Formats: sequence, C-alpha cells, structure tokens
Amino acid sequence: MIFDTRKLASEFIGTLFLVATVVGSGIMAETLAEGNAAVALLGNTLATAGILYVLITCLGPVSGAHFNPAVSVVFWLKGELGAVDCTQYIVFQCLGAMAGVMLAHAMFDQSLIQTSVNMRYGSNIWLAESVATFGLVATILTGLRHRPESVASLVSLYITAGYWFTASTSFANPAVTLGRSFTDSFSGIRLCDMPFFVLAQLLGAVLAYYLVRALLPKNNTE
Amino acid sequence: MIFDTRKLASEFIGTLFLVATVVGSGIMAETLAEGNAAVALLGNTLATAGILYVLITCLGPVSGAHFNPAVSVVFWLKGELGAVDCTQYIVFQCLGAMAGVMLAHAMFDQSLIQTSVNMRYGSNIWLAESVATFGLVATILTGLRHRPESVASLVSLYITAGYWFTASTSFANPAVTLGRSFTDSFSGIRLCDMPFFVLAQLLGAVLAYYLVRALLPKNNTE
Amino acid sequence: MIFDTRKLASEFIGTLFLVATVVGSGIMAETLAEGNAAVALLGNTLATAGILYVLITCLGPVSGAHFNPAVSVVFWLKGELGAVDCTQYIVFQCLGAMAGVMLAHAMFDQSLIQTSVNMRYGSNIWLAESVATFGLVATILTGLRHRPESVASLVSLYITAGYWFTASTSFANPAVTLGRSFTDSFSGIRLCDMPFFVLAQLLGAVLAYYLVRALLPKNNTE
Amino acid sequence: MIFDTRKLASEFIGTLFLVATVVGSGIMAETLAEGNAAVALLGNTLATAGILYVLITCLGPVSGAHFNPAVSVVFWLKGELGAVDCTQYIVFQCLGAMAGVMLAHAMFDQSLIQTSVNMRYGSNIWLAESVATFGLVATILTGLRHRPESVASLVSLYITAGYWFTASTSFANPAVTLGRSFTDSFSGIRLCDMPFFVLAQLLGAVLAYYLVRALLPKNNTE
Repeated sequence: MIFDTRKLASEFIGTLFLVATVVGSGIMAETLAEGNAAVALLGNTLATAGILYVLITCLGPVSGAHFNPAVSVVFWLKGELGAVDCTQYIVFQCLGAMAGVMLAHAMFDQSLIQTSVNMRYGSNIWLAESVATFGLVATILTGLRHRPESVASLVSLYITAGYWFTASTSFANPAVTLGRSFTDSFSGIRLCDMPFFVLAQLLGAVLAYYLVRALLPKNNTE
Repeated sequence: MIFDTRKLASEFIGTLFLVATVVGSGIMAETLAEGNAAVALLGNTLATAGILYVLITCLGPVSGAHFNPAVSVVFWLKGELGAVDCTQYIVFQCLGAMAGVMLAHAMFDQSLIQTSVNMRYGSNIWLAESVATFGLVATILTGLRHRPESVASLVSLYITAGYWFTASTSFANPAVTLGRSFTDSFSGIRLCDMPFFVLAQLLGAVLAYYLVRALLPKNNTE
Repeated sequence: MIFDTRKLASEFIGTLFLVATVVGSGIMAETLAEGNAAVALLGNTLATAGILYVLITCLGPVSGAHFNPAVSVVFWLKGELGAVDCTQYIVFQCLGAMAGVMLAHAMFDQSLIQTSVNMRYGSNIWLAESVATFGLVATILTGLRHRPESVASLVSLYITAGYWFTASTSFANPAVTLGRSFTDSFSGIRLCDMPFFVLAQLLGAVLAYYLVRALLPKNNTE
Repeated sequence: MIFDTRKLASEFIGTLFLVATVVGSGIMAETLAEGNAAVALLGNTLATAGILYVLITCLGPVSGAHFNPAVSVVFWLKGELGAVDCTQYIVFQCLGAMAGVMLAHAMFDQSLIQTSVNMRYGSNIWLAESVATFGLVATILTGLRHRPESVASLVSLYITAGYWFTASTSFANPAVTLGRSFTDSFSGIRLCDMPFFVLAQLLGAVLAYYLVRALLPKNNTE
C-alpha cells in the first residue's frame, strides 16, 4: 500500500504526544521549580519516561512506534521499512512534532510558535547527542532481539538515564529536536543549533546499527 | 442483576483511596515542601502513580476498576456497560470521591469538608483537561486491545506524564474533580470551576472513543 | 517442623534489610536535604520502594516475605500459618528490625541504639496508621488472589503512595515501628508512641482481612 | 574458546555505559542542583537505576551482564565461569570503566582523566560497602534462582535503595570504583581510598555467596 493511514496517523499522534509531553512538562517544571533546574529536570524526566512507555506500548502494534526519524532510518537500513514508507514516516513524525509543540504552548496559554534562544552548541554536546542516539538505537535493536515485550520499558528507562548522563540531555530524535526548536522554554534549542544535533543523532544511530549487527549476527541463535 | 454489591463496593473503595491519595499526598507534599511547588508535585505524582497501579491491579478483576465517570461513560458507549450499571457506577464513584476527600482531611486533622479557593479556569486549562482525558481514555482503550495485562502500568505512567505536561495537572476524572472541589489544599479546585472541567473531560473522553474506534476497527486482527 | 531455620532466617534478614533501608535512607536524606523535608521524603520513598520489591521477590519463595507481624497475624487468621509459626515469625521479625536499626546506625557512624524524640501521637495519626495498614493488607490479599506474581510490585507501589498520602507516612508494620523507636533521626518515633501505632496497625490489618473475605469469598471463581 | 570477543565486548560496553552514566549524571546533577545534594542524588539514582535495567536486559543474553568484578568472582566461585574467563571479564570491565569515565568527561567538556579529592574513608564506610555488595550479590543469586527474568529489575531497584541506605552510596563494584577514582566530581573517590572499597566489596560478595548457598542449597526444589 502506498499510503497506510493507520500507521501514519499512529506516528503523527505518537510524536505529537511525545513532543507535547517533553515541551509541556518542561514549561510546567520550569514554572514550578523557580530556578532549581535539577528539580525541573526530575519532573521533565518522569513525564517523558512515563509517556514513552505508554506510547510505545499502545501504538507499537499499529506502526512500530518509531516517533523518531533516526529509528526509522535504522529500520530502513535493516530492510524492514521501504524507502517510501520511511520517508512518509519521517514526514508525519515531523508534522506530529510541530503539532505537539503547538499543543503544549496552547495548553500553557503561550504563542503557538516561538523562537528559542537556548544555545546548545559545541563539539562536546554533539558527542553527547551521538552517544545518546547510539545508546537509544542499540537499546531498541538488542531489546527487540532478546526481550521484545520489554522494549517500551527499555526505551523509557534508557531516556531516563540519558536525560541525566549526557551533557545534551539526550534529545536523540531529529523530529523532537525540530519541535523543540520552536519553543522558548526549558526544553528549547536554537533553530540554528538544530542541524548539528540531527547530524550527530543520525551518526550515532547508524554506528549503533552496524555495531549491533557485528556483535549479534542475524543467524545467531542465542 | 440490578445492584451488584461487590462491583459497586469496589468502585466506591477504589475512588475513595484514589481521592484520599491525591488530596492527602498534596497536603503532605505542600506541608513538607515549604513553597517549592515542583518538589510538591513530584511527591504528588509518585503517590498517585503508585496507588493507581495498586487499585487497578487489585480491583480490576472485581469491577473493571474505572473509578472515573468518564471511563464508565466510554464503556457504556462501547456497549460493555448498561445504562443502569453505568449510572450506579458513577453514583458510587462520586460517593467514594467525597468519602476520600473527607478521609484525607481526617488523617491530616483538618475540617472534613472545605471550600477551595484554588482557581483553575480558562480556555487553555479546559483544553488541557480535554487533552488529558483524551489521552487517558485512548491509553485505556488501546492498552486493553494490545496489552490488557499492562493497563495498570499504562494508566499509572500516563498520569505520571499528565501531571506534568498538561497545564491543568490532568484531573481527567469527573469524580476526582468533584472530590477535589472540597479541599482547600494543593490539589483543590474551586467548586465553580468544576463543571467546566467535567465538560472538558467528557468531551476528551468521547473524542478518544471515536478516534480509537476509527483507527482500530473491531474486526481488525492486528 | 517446630523450627524452620530457613524461613526464620529469611524473615530475620528481610526485616533487617527493610529497617536498615528505612532508617539508613532517612539519615542519608535528612543529612543531604538540609531541611527540605519533602526532598528527604522523596529519597526515603525511592529507597523503601526499591528494597521492598527486592526483598519480596527474592525471599518470598523462602518464607512468604512477611517481614511484618501484622501480615503474619492475618495469615494466621486465614489459617495459612500456625500459631507457633506465627509467633516465631514475629519474634524473628522484631529481632531483625532491631538488628536493622543498629546496622543503619553503624554504617552512618552513630550510636547503635538511640532514643527518638520524634513525637508521632494523636487520633488523626492513629487513624492514618489504621488506614495505611488496612490498605497494605488489602493490597496483599487481593493481589495474591488476582495477580500473585505482582505482589512485590504492588507492595512497593502501595508504600510509595502510603509514605505521602497518610499523615503518619505509613509505618504499617509493628516490627518496623519497633525498630524505628530506637533511632533519633528522620524516620524515628518516640518509644512511648509506639504501642498506639502497633494497636492501630493491627486494627487496620484485621479489618482488611474481614472486608476482603466479605467482598471476595473463597469459592468465588472470578 | 580462549577469547570470546562478543562476551568481552559486551562486558566492556556495558561497564563503559554504566560508569559513563554514574559519573555523567553526577556531573549533571551537581551542576543543576547548585548545592542541594539530596536533589543531586535523586537524579543520580534515577539515571543509574535506568541504565542498569537497560544494560542487564540488553546485554545479559550476551555475556551475563556482570559489569562488576565482584559478581564475576562469585560466578567463578560457583563454578560457572572459568578462572581465565573470569580474569578476562575483570580486565575488560576495568577497561570499560576507564573508557566510561573518560567518555563522561568528554561529553561535559572536562579533562578526560582527573584526580578526585572526594574522601571516602573510615570503618563505617567500609562496612557500608560490604553491606552494599553483600546485598547486591544476594539479590542476584536469589533472583536468578527464583525469578531469573526479573534480575534486571531487581538489580536496578536494589541499587536505587543502596544509593540511599548505605553511608557510602553503594559503589558495590570494584570496576566502577576504579573508574570513579578518576573523576573530580560528585561521584568521585580518592584513588588512595579505592583499595579499601574494593576489599570491602569483595568481602561482602563472598559472604553473600556462602550465605545464599547455606540458605538455599542447590538440590532444593522450592
């Protein structure tokens, strides 16, 4: 089928809720924490981890629950997603991300589209994004191999860790990065910093794909 | 049977403990946090998420563990709950909510029934409640379809996210909203703001029901 | 068998680790939080929830993982534990609790046995302890009926909620209450307040036993 | 096989990510928390617990997911790991730990190798490390016996508790202790304090092995 409405709707809705949660909980946390950024990040972490478990569990059987162009690209590399499907997925993930940031702003009575001034730039930050996305993709690929029913928990808890151990707080997702470019709040990133994040993320994702393939060859029965 | 004591007792007790937890943990958190609302919300979140998992797991096999008129209405729409049963459920949920807020106040040595002055009003807040309840109902319906044994975890983690990403902190439950109208503490809502919350919640719930039905038709075997 | 070494060792070690965690994490949290009691309670909550899941999962198959005289009394009422076994369980739980508080103090370089000045007295606090223990026992009994493999998660998450929604922070355990009578730190309770806590806990436990029996009769197959 | 590349790569990568998470989240938490050490430890706890669940689930089927010389020594005592394999595991765990601390520093734009001035010395702290490692090993051994599919959750939640109830914050791992000797941040330990930690950890691990063997003999079928 050229255009699978259910799958694309699932990717759109999932990415929408994911970005609305990341941005919305960032606004809530920043507002309530009054300057204590660690407390704000705790709230941001719990919310993101919670919604990831929910979205992957509920929408996984519909579309695979990528919500992330880097993940879709890896499944295209694996030959499990065609080029056209992959492109459609990415388009709807980006549309969902834009809708998500606008929904968050609407709920908090803010301008729907904003210009972030949150600088996230530098080779160490790019390294962090590559590491973050490498870990996310490796988690998904090895999790699917060994414990497919736990992938929702795995992604949720990996991002819980990633929010804290990577200097960039683990965006690890080009569509989410795009959405976060349009909010001037806790979770924002300057639009001009976005392309470097996306490149670093894709690099980490592809590296993870090849490393996992080398370590766990397909005909391995363990 | 016209009147199923066990089911109604389950809905009463479940909603009682749910509201006692939301209100009680709000009082505890507010008292201890001394003005740091983000820390207070963290405690409120953990307590609510914990009790939801417990109540849904332990009482789900008895009454379905709705504890929420919006959820009961959706199951009536689905044809899985008769009109009389649905009405009885809602009555006992509301009674449980009132008992729950009084129990919380009694444990914290406060007046049993209080008048909230906590304003929660505005179109953005109503949007947030619709989104919150939409997400809750969509989580329950898709979770029941794909992973029924995980519904307790799903609801618990959805509300964890909802407390942070929605501007209204996700009441998402008309009975709980009613109960929270009678506490002058962290989790309270003015009685006059309550009807708008309930309307927004029901709107979100019904929308979720129709969207899930459209995306995942019953004869779909995926 | 008159004296089952393995079971009594399990109850001793489990209660020891439980009390060492409650008291030790209270000391750690209080020291680090420098007066922010809500943050301290967050740390106390995570630690207690974590160790409960571990102890119940790892020692449940050995002794049933009561670690709590109120729970042992309920299993005696149910006829699943003889009077002699029940008494032995309680003795070893209390010994474990005393060893646990001493271990916590030793790790934090404090006097092994201390006198608590932490007043926890009043009818509202006793109500809270009854509610807390009622909920704990109801959780265990209904959990064992409907989802025995989830009892460790259920108890862990129930106590997570209980630490916040009950005014007494849910001791809900006579042996733990005894142990906490001998620490002059965050989690302590005056020795003279202890008997009232124990009475309130036993009352709540027995009430839960009879209510669950009424609602879920044994020959019920649901 | 003398040299199993996949297993050693798994131990290297796992320990690398574990140490990068412990150290990286410590830096993040300390930076954001601005002096509130309890809030910093909350972030550190969530991140460590999250990554432990992920690493053990994803790499357990490859190498057993020790990431810890104390654990490898116990499996050697049990006769499930040969002396040569055990030595190789330990070497690669230590290499992974060193790579992990350097990766964390690189992501946060710091000197790759640092000198810690964080004193962690004293008999009470050593007792805490013995207790921490005793508990960790007992958790793993009894978990593998009774509920092998839950070992990742068990270790994750045990360490959640250990970070708070032991005065040493539960390093409980000689390789991680080595790595943390080379960071001058929240999670660091002076190089001169490291050997005592390692000795205390090994003592606790061996004690746990013999106690579990005594309590749960191999031919026990419970």
